[in-house]
Amino acid sequence: MRDTTLAYIAGFLDGDGSIMFQLKPRSDYAYGFQIKVTLAFYQKQSNRSILEWLYENLKVGAVRDRNDGMSEYDIEGFAPVRNVLEMLEPYVVLKRDQVDMALRLIEEITNQPEPAPNEFLEWCAKVEIFQTLNYTKNRRHTYESVRAILKSKGYLVPP
Amino acid sequence: MRDTTLAYIAGFLDGDGSIMFQLKPRSDYAYGFQIKVTLAFYQKQSNRSILEWLYENLKVGAVRDRNDGMSEYDIEGFAPVRNVLEMLEPYVVLKRDQVDMALRLIEEITNQPEPAPNEFLEWCAKVEIFQTLNYTKNRRHTYESVRAILKSKGYLVPP
Repeated sequence: MRDTTLAYIAGFLDGDGSIMFQLKPRSDYAYGFQIKVTLAFYQKQSNRSILEWLYENLKVGAVRDRNDGMSEYDIEGFAPVRNVLEMLEPYVVLKRDQVDMALRLIEEITNQPEPAPNEFLEWCAKVEIFQTLNYTKNRRHTYESVRAILKSKGYLVPP
Repeated sequence: MRDTTLAYIAGFLDGDGSIMFQLKPRSDYAYGFQIKVTLAFYQKQSNRSILEWLYENLKVGAVRDRNDGMSEYDIEGFAPVRNVLEMLEPYVVLKRDQVDMALRLIEEITNQPEPAPNEFLEWCAKVEIFQTLNYTKNRRHTYESVRAILKSKGYLVPP
């Protein structure tokens, strides 16, 4: 891809995109939660074409229409989000700290497929710090939710 | 300026900026109205730094805090807006038609400092078409306002 295309997408991300980490309850997971990462771009549906254009350039993720008149282009998963963020990173200005923090957290998580409970909890704390940067409202599952689950499952024994 | 900086700003404009033409009532103008053009970027005040960054690169216009928690970076006037749009034009994707239309209208207006009433009215019609692209709400002064004024001043005589 041309460097001006990457710089354009970095500008679009700074103006209108977001990087999100979320805690998803998953009863089939040992610790009861999955950490998810999403890189998302939003436009009203009449401007959906620009989201398709981003998709054609990045060749990952999917564009969908929401039921509130907006369209959303989502890239989900550690590997796809890391690849895209690494390409955009040199050109990002406003969200530079967020991109760097996201890349570090993805690195940590993917390097350790079987985290100890305390390690997992540490990641959840970082997810929460990240959400604070995003001013995310309606966070349903927090560090505290995970800690309560881990405790109830007997994972958090005194050292 | 580096081409990746221009491409970044073009992406930011597509994600979060707007190009606006407005009709301003001016009692000291022959036709009662002035046509104004503004290139604007918006962010919440906590992200004001990115607007300052844009200003440092484009070296024109001004950043101000609004009283609704947002900051706004405005570039006003035909010559400044034209200069910036001409630099960004090669990299703009979503707002490409708007940029081209704005550049043509600015060209027409600046080439004719003493328009005939019908010519001025034609520009006002184009301002209105442009506003439709922007989905601008709360348009106070329209083509019809200008036509009414021109008619009341006796400018619009039957051919």
